[in-house]
Amino acid sequence: MAEKEKMTIIVFSGEMDKVLSAFNLAIGGATAGMDVTMFFTFWGLNAIKKNEGSIKSKGIMRKMLNTMNRGGAKRLPLSKFHMMGMGKWMMQKLMRDINFPSVEELMATAKEFGVKFVACTTTIGMMGLSKDDFIPDVDSFAGVATYVAIAKESKVNLFI
Amino acid sequence: MAEKEKMTIIVFSGEMDKVLSAFNLAIGGATAGMDVTMFFTFWGLNAIKKNEGSIKSKGIMRKMLNTMNRGGAKRLPLSKFHMMGMGKWMMQKLMRDINFPSVEELMATAKEFGVKFVACTTTIGMMGLSKDDFIPDVDSFAGVATYVAIAKESKVNLFI
Amino acid sequence: MAEKEKMTIIVFSGEMDKVLSAFNLAIGGATAGMDVTMFFTFWGLNAIKKNEGSIKSKGIMRKMLNTMNRGGAKRLPLSKFHMMGMGKWMMQKLMRDINFPSVEELMATAKEFGVKFVACTTTIGMMGLSKDDFIPDVDSFAGVATYVAIAKESKVNLFI
Repeated sequence: MAEKEKMTIIVFSGEMDKVLSAFNLAIGGATAGMDVTMFFTFWGLNAIKKNEGSIKSKGIMRKMLNTMNRGGAKRLPLSKFHMMGMGKWMMQKLMRDINFPSVEELMATAKEFGVKFVACTTTIGMMGLSKDDFIPDVDSFAGVATYVAIAKESKVNLFI
Repeated sequence: MAEKEKMTIIVFSGEMDKVLSAFNLAIGGATAGMDVTMFFTFWGLNAIKKNEGSIKSKGIMRKMLNTMNRGGAKRLPLSKFHMMGMGKWMMQKLMRDINFPSVEELMATAKEFGVKFVACTTTIGMMGLSKDDFIPDVDSFAGVATYVAIAKESKVNLFI
Repeated sequence: MAEKEKMTIIVFSGEMDKVLSAFNLAIGGATAGMDVTMFFTFWGLNAIKKNEGSIKSKGIMRKMLNTMNRGGAKRLPLSKFHMMGMGKWMMQKLMRDINFPSVEELMATAKEFGVKFVACTTTIGMMGLSKDDFIPDVDSFAGVATYVAIAKESKVNLFI
């Protein structure tokens, strides 16, 4: 049996619009029969953090960072037109108008299509997070070596 | 006859400097004999909107979004050093000093070299735009499936 | 002898977090035995500018641009949580806590592993810079044609 063609997406950015784009591309790849892996790093980790509860990070600075940087697919900001949160509210309204799925719905669809979620251990350590801070949909925790091994066998590699 | 090698560029960002970079890379690929396709999505759509006229979008929010987000190659902001528009004016002056082409000139050159422009139907729908809002140089309107089909046959795929 | 697999990274952004990510990926590729080339363009050029001394650019606007845009691996801002520089200071503290290398250390490691640094001649000209403004670790100065030639033979191409 022939191996599936591969696609990787590094999700570095945590803005709602970029994360939407990342999931859309991942689902597009999976629908076309590809084996898709998403690597979440830096602010992209926010997309796969749990929505509820507070992060029990050690030290005042990590606490501050993680409070400002609260994650969860529901809380992602927009890369443009913040306008004190109104930009994001507008974008979500526009998405509902055309029945466009939310980040959470896209994430669930991606999982259904077999897209793999990998969280970057290096940035998790830097931010004082632990595995418990992430949603159960995360398939594995790994570093750059894992990424490179998959990326060099892939047809499509994107950094978002 | 051997098929040409392919290159794809997703233009997600609408800032002048990123759009300049995208067209520069597209022209570089086309000059090297590659078959280049640019996919414009989200804020990148601004680069291929018509400069003149107002967008007749429905609903107050889409009107607001499209007013704030007026497109056309002449109107793209800069990703750094906005300084109330002065950063962009400076950058344009610096570009003229060394006879560097403007976004509009690069776009025309890209077309001459056969670069294809594809506009993302999903984000067009989300923003309440229609095909009439775009310049005639757009070759087609398509979604992520079209992107993936071309990208997995391409030697170079970039997300800008 | 078989040729090494190739990887290219365009470093467009000059923010510390994105530059860290770029060097991390480059080192990851080189460690896996790949031949990695990093192309620095636009704000990414800041990462390979000399830390000390002032840039002797001609004309008031280029002087302003280069003063605001002072480079050197030590001076890169953060893409989020500026908070008047405090965000960056926090990030650096967090990195020290877990013994994560600084941008300068990662850059030195990348060189040790044979990663090539190429600076974009087009944006250097636009900003009124000269070759003397860059660190000696820069291997060459080249344009988009050089990038495309390497990228189309590469397994992994990223735009950061």
